Amino acid sequence: MSTPAARTPDSETLWVQDFADGSREQRDLLGGKGANVAEMTRVLGPALVPAGFTITTAACVAYMESGGTLPDGLHEQTISALGRLEAATGKTLGDPEDPLLVSVRSGARESMPGMLDTVLNLGLTDRSVEGLAARTQNPRFAWDSYRRFVQMYANVVKGVAGEDLERAIAQRKQVRGVALDTELDTDDLRALVATFKDLYRDATGEAFPQDPRVQLDGAIRAVFDSWTGHRAVTYRRLNRIPDSWGTAVNVQQMVFGNKGETSGSGVAFSRDEVDGAPEPSGDFLANAQGEDVVSGVRTPRDIRELAEWQPAVHAQLMDILRTLERHYGDMQDTEFTVEEGRLYMLQTRAAKRPAQAAVRFAVDAVAEGLLDKGAALRTIDASSLDALLHPTFGNLDYAVLARGVAASPGAAKGHLVFTAKEAVARASDPEYPHDLILARPFTEADDVAGFHAAKGILTSEGGKASHAALVARGMGRPAVTGASEVEIDLDARTLRVGDVVLHDGDLIAINGSTGAVTTDDVPLVEPEVSEHFQTVLAWADELRGLGVRTNADTPQDAARAISFGAEGIGLCRTEHMFLGDRQPLMADVILAANDRDRAAAIDALRPLQESDFEQILRTMDGRPVTVRLLDPPLHEFLPHPEALPEHSPERARVESLQEVNPMLGTRGVRLGILMPALYEMQVRALFTAAARIDGPTPPRVEVMVPLVDYERELELVRGLIDRVAREVGMPADAYLVGTMIELPRACFLADEIAHHADFFSFGTNDLTQTGLGFSRDDIEGRILARYIDVGILDRSPFETIDSPGIGQMLRMGAWLGRCTKPQLKLGVCGEHGGDPDSIAFFHESGIDYVSCSPYRVPIARVAAAQAAVAGADART
Amino acid sequence: MSTPAARTPDSETLWVQDFADGSREQRDLLGGKGANVAEMTRVLGPALVPAGFTITTAACVAYMESGGTLPDGLHEQTISALGRLEAATGKTLGDPEDPLLVSVRSGARESMPGMLDTVLNLGLTDRSVEGLAARTQNPRFAWDSYRRFVQMYANVVKGVAGEDLERAIAQRKQVRGVALDTELDTDDLRALVATFKDLYRDATGEAFPQDPRVQLDGAIRAVFDSWTGHRAVTYRRLNRIPDSWGTAVNVQQMVFGNKGETSGSGVAFSRDEVDGAPEPSGDFLANAQGEDVVSGVRTPRDIRELAEWQPAVHAQLMDILRTLERHYGDMQDTEFTVEEGRLYMLQTRAAKRPAQAAVRFAVDAVAEGLLDKGAALRTIDASSLDALLHPTFGNLDYAVLARGVAASPGAAKGHLVFTAKEAVARASDPEYPHDLILARPFTEADDVAGFHAAKGILTSEGGKASHAALVARGMGRPAVTGASEVEIDLDARTLRVGDVVLHDGDLIAINGSTGAVTTDDVPLVEPEVSEHFQTVLAWADELRGLGVRTNADTPQDAARAISFGAEGIGLCRTEHMFLGDRQPLMADVILAANDRDRAAAIDALRPLQESDFEQILRTMDGRPVTVRLLDPPLHEFLPHPEALPEHSPERARVESLQEVNPMLGTRGVRLGILMPALYEMQVRALFTAAARIDGPTPPRVEVMVPLVDYERELELVRGLIDRVAREVGMPADAYLVGTMIELPRACFLADEIAHHADFFSFGTNDLTQTGLGFSRDDIEGRILARYIDVGILDRSPFETIDSPGIGQMLRMGAWLGRCTKPQLKLGVCGEHGGDPDSIAFFHESGIDYVSCSPYRVPIARVAAAQAAVAGADART
Repeated sequence: MSTPAARTPDSETLWVQDFADGSREQRDLLGGKGANVAEMTRVLGPALVPAGFTITTAACVAYMESGGTLPDGLHEQTISALGRLEAATGKTLGDPEDPLLVSVRSGARESMPGMLDTVLNLGLTDRSVEGLAARTQNPRFAWDSYRRFVQMYANVVKGVAGEDLERAIAQRKQVRGVALDTELDTDDLRALVATFKDLYRDATGEAFPQDPRVQLDGAIRAVFDSWTGHRAVTYRRLNRIPDSWGTAVNVQQMVFGNKGETSGSGVAFSRDEVDGAPEPSGDFLANAQGEDVVSGVRTPRDIRELAEWQPAVHAQLMDILRTLERHYGDMQDTEFTVEEGRLYMLQTRAAKRPAQAAVRFAVDAVAEGLLDKGAALRTIDASSLDALLHPTFGNLDYAVLARGVAASPGAAKGHLVFTAKEAVARASDPEYPHDLILARPFTEADDVAGFHAAKGILTSEGGKASHAALVARGMGRPAVTGASEVEIDLDARTLRVGDVVLHDGDLIAINGSTGAVTTDDVPLVEPEVSEHFQTVLAWADELRGLGVRTNADTPQDAARAISFGAEGIGLCRTEHMFLGDRQPLMADVILAANDRDRAAAIDALRPLQESDFEQILRTMDGRPVTVRLLDPPLHEFLPHPEALPEHSPERARVESLQEVNPMLGTRGVRLGILMPALYEMQVRALFTAAARIDGPTPPRVEVMVPLVDYERELELVRGLIDRVAREVGMPADAYLVGTMIELPRACFLADEIAHHADFFSFGTNDLTQTGLGFSRDDIEGRILARYIDVGILDRSPFETIDSPGIGQMLRMGAWLGRCTKPQLKLGVCGEHGGDPDSIAFFHESGIDYVSCSPYRVPIARVAAAQAAVAGADART
Repeated sequence: MSTPAARTPDSETLWVQDFADGSREQRDLLGGKGANVAEMTRVLGPALVPAGFTITTAACVAYMESGGTLPDGLHEQTISALGRLEAATGKTLGDPEDPLLVSVRSGARESMPGMLDTVLNLGLTDRSVEGLAARTQNPRFAWDSYRRFVQMYANVVKGVAGEDLERAIAQRKQVRGVALDTELDTDDLRALVATFKDLYRDATGEAFPQDPRVQLDGAIRAVFDSWTGHRAVTYRRLNRIPDSWGTAVNVQQMVFGNKGETSGSGVAFSRDEVDGAPEPSGDFLANAQGEDVVSGVRTPRDIRELAEWQPAVHAQLMDILRTLERHYGDMQDTEFTVEEGRLYMLQTRAAKRPAQAAVRFAVDAVAEGLLDKGAALRTIDASSLDALLHPTFGNLDYAVLARGVAASPGAAKGHLVFTAKEAVARASDPEYPHDLILARPFTEADDVAGFHAAKGILTSEGGKASHAALVARGMGRPAVTGASEVEIDLDARTLRVGDVVLHDGDLIAINGSTGAVTTDDVPLVEPEVSEHFQTVLAWADELRGLGVRTNADTPQDAARAISFGAEGIGLCRTEHMFLGDRQPLMADVILAANDRDRAAAIDALRPLQESDFEQILRTMDGRPVTVRLLDPPLHEFLPHPEALPEHSPERARVESLQEVNPMLGTRGVRLGILMPALYEMQVRALFTAAARIDGPTPPRVEVMVPLVDYERELELVRGLIDRVAREVGMPADAYLVGTMIELPRACFLADEIAHHADFFSFGTNDLTQTGLGFSRDDIEGRILARYIDVGILDRSPFETIDSPGIGQMLRMGAWLGRCTKPQLKLGVCGEHGGDPDSIAFFHESGIDYVSCSPYRVPIARVAAAQAAVAGADART
């Protein structure tokens, strides 16, 4: 992005717009709140929505760019809008008889709850408070409002310490011997106003402003300034909201829920906010302003009780909720105030909701005719569905022993084990309990067999992108990583947190969705794909264009993925098949002293590979299975050199295979060129296994060659594959040969590589690492926090594809590949294949299918459908 | 490259062309020899060149693609051409009275000396040999020719073992009691022909063919087959000649240098083949065929003696050499035959020549008006100039102790030292001799100070791209790497080769141009840039468009580079400045427990950096100096963790900085973002140093930020640089800020990055590693040989830029950068900056300058000029 040219403040610019003139389409200009209030005014009519106007985000941007000067014309336009507001309400700001009071609220394009400032009851002065008291015949209400205003203004606009103000209230209550704010009487409130004004003078050196226009000016500046405050900046970093957006300011006539027992304030959802059931939900408080409902000082009442308290208001509110929901086509979250029996709607917005509520709403909305399937799907946050696909601790309280990174979602409970080898042994030993939690400082390729054997993984080092996190997410194993309070002593086989010491075999539970670790015997609640969720997934399958496959290396993973709706395997990694028990066999292959010994070692592996492939092919029952030939550097299959005798030839050979940068090393197709017998064994095992399956649905085998840079690499390996196919009698149309596109060079030369490929599968993990020249470990482990902090990144490029960089490389590869073969099949099998934002990008890039871990298959199905619907909408 | 569609043999295709109809422009079709013979026929006239015809490379390609079938039409066209040849010579193939004899010689597009097959004297049969004997009245000549033919045909066409044939000759000589072939008489030769025919029948089951057309057919096939023979394939791999070219076959009337004492054969160069002096050079033998001159059985005579032997022939030959040289505009290498006093020219081609001859020829050719400067420059092989820029052992014989890889050219002699630290200490200690050879199994960043201290480097591991080789080439230090016979025991401080054991301090010499290691006290001959070479370099500077800078980290390197004509420093790496003595200071910076300690450690480094920069800026005297801010991962400056106490916090910190893939790690600008104080110190030191220089030529400072991926990375660091400039009073127009473009993402987003850059410098080493996803160590150390063998690569992509892949990334970066800033300055500072083929690519890519090691600066100047001349030629 280029630095935008500085905007010249322009007195002709429209900085201010009345609610009555706006609509929801103007969200960028008016902010979410401003646009929604305007829309609501249009939909419900002006009688139900207090009047007001919005100072636009453009004004905030101009203010920021000028270094804190309000833009030319803003003052005049504000005065003018105020005049219209006064005319509409029949009241005047600062009128000593019947003053207009206004709220001044922030409202950014995206909701930033609690991050930006708000001032209520603005317009009260020492004189007008008396007018309000007289007019309402409610002096306590008037002084309570003035007290609230002075307190808020002092704190928010002038930075008077909130504690000092609160302390004054507490002292007053102590003096008066009361417990609640509502027990303070008019005199108390009057006294508090005086105290607050003293505090104000002490802090600012000025008297509290008695000119409401000065008050308004101060409040507007305070809202603008809050946009660049520390809290807001941090929030935006975390939520990927650009600094450049700015916030709007909404100035609205006050209505009062604190005018007595026929007044009140509340929040209402158009459906149940927890489970999405059709009944509206919410809370309210009689004789209270909105802030009181949220603050938790008094316990609010359920919205259903509103029907007893003021039946007409309840009925009207229910009607309004239906109207708004129908109008917006989405579940609404509203704020309302009842002023002396009259209902006012202050705010409406799409309701944030947990996954089960989102799914329920979508299904019901279609059943009710509110939305069509595509629109209903788009109301679901696909990422949130993760929560429905893993075991949980339920809603029980438990004692948290330590916290780490929520690295792979779901909960797991079991007995501590400290090595992968023991985990494998115990998992199949009837002497031991089978539920195991594998705890390691960090994990490596050697430990992967232990991931299969254990129910969950706990590490004291590494983040969301550590080896442990990646492998665990890939397998759908819950994992907590980087729990830095946890000290794991592998020699002593203890896990220590402060004074608590756990030993091998002790019970422990982890929650990979929250990062919590506990020794409580929490019950695990298994996930169910509910009927509603099944319905949503069926619609997704109707609507999506992208295929969804899974990354699965075992029949178990394959079966699970099928149950989640995977249409095939997009990535079956073969390296895990050579670890655990088989590692010594693989070591023999690599370390063989001569060709004869190597051939013998490879022969010993072949029947095992055949059986691996046969089971997976049978499980997939005619669905396509993409098998990637061996990829990792050879040393991953070897013992550590230190474990071998010094000066032994074996150790020398193992040492010679160590690499300074293994990611950039002798792996992938390079192995296939250097040691063709290994690839040949794999291909022969695969084809032989396929030939054994003679049911009605023949297996669909796709052989995938990793890490290709050069056309000729693929040409050579394809030659080997085709030769083996002929030798075992595999018909030429019974299998495909393709390649990973996971190196920048391959994207540039994809037209040439495509000559020898029936399909491409973009390996976006490695493409990201090489395209950025930045390892996953370094980005996520060392630098991400800092890079987000200084505005370089807004999230890890391993989580969501870096669309302007890596994404464009992928598109170049896709385009060039299809220049050569217009029907070339294109897939994606990196971690990004399960990320909704990335899936949308892949959909728009013309990819045919994504492949992701089994547990993310449902998410990918929904996200793919959303991308298809969004794309169709954008084109109509 | 795509697989070419199989060529359909087409009887309309022209497979055969007479010499008289061809020209040198048809080299691709006729091969080098065929094109040159045709051209020579045109230039010298048919009387001087024996007539004949060429069977084209296209015929060979069709033959290969059909799996060994001669294409339709070839036979007819050959017969037809033979008819024309018979008409022109007045003789007939196989005529029993006066037979036409022909030679059948291979001739590929590029010369492949000795790799492809040749058959001479074809057309002789049992009958025609008698006719030849009668006609020439020289039976011995006739039978010698027949003996040669049968022997060659049996061996070359039918694969009869050469040893068996040679043994028969040896036996005959033994029986007759003579030593030389020429001492065998007609009867002997007749008997040998009979013996050869028996051997032929034993091997093939057939009689020796008596139909000359069958002979011709067999010879043509044999030449075609030799193209795919093992020797030829290996040669092509090594010399980067595509398999797809095929070879042509030249059928030419035989002329005979073996017809007696007025006959002879020879080779002649148009200038002195060793030093390029204007006098022609060469060898000849009387009464001999061309093969005898080359075989070394008889010692040939100097070409000058030809003037005594046959003065008219000598004069004619001298005249022809001048004519050919003038015609071709290049020094010629010819073959000739004198048949009974009449001169025939058989072949001419551009002479291969050593660097000094190439330079001398270029200068003389311009002086003589033969060539203009541009054309003269293009006759020089720029790579070969390396030989003129390093010390050598001279031409003395010496005993080779071991051989390794010729990793960095030049010779060095000195006393063995086994650690960098000792090398540094001894180099400045008057107690020790200062000439040192540093011997290590392999080297690392820590050893670099030792490279500066030593005269040469010897390692037992690693190839041309090992750390030792790269650093040595960068510094111009001679190096032999991967001398695998050498065992270096660092504990015992011995270097062992078989039984020879050398100790610390023993004398050793290495020749980095040949890979030889010796313990002989060989004298070193220092290089001089000769007057001729200076002249050539001056012309190069006139003609080239590319600027040539140098990579230099020290004032010494900078001064050397200036003496070689560098116009500035394109890459001044600052990391070497923190090794050696200063490493502990740098370790303090990195390991500081708090910000105050870190600031203090950085303060301690700053005056040292200032002094580094000041010396370099003074040396460069107003030429631009591009300083790259710190690039390598921090752990390179730290001790090995094993060297620190277990469980110490220092060790934990050092361990935490180790990276699995340091190449993809926390380095470059990432350090500048994480630890801005380090970059700030460097920038402050640089600007402060620049401010101290107040001579008439102000320093030109260019600050370069490495490893940028994201626009905002550069924006942030540029902000820091500009701030420091303001703080030290550096005017904004007194320095530039730019970035390395060395990551694929940066190439894709170069338009955005360019907003904050005054220049780009393409770091083609890292761009190659990341773009290919392949480390230099792995490519050159483990896989290059195999990849060349199977036809994936023809050379290392770190030697010559991979133009379709990495080269296109560079062009994309250049193009996008200039979309934003049309005047953006573009440089290249990888190893490729000193490689002539890569320089040509950079020239065509619109790059402004290359930067290379000091010793390659002259090569780059010449190569840049050649690229400019070639480009201009191609456009006219």
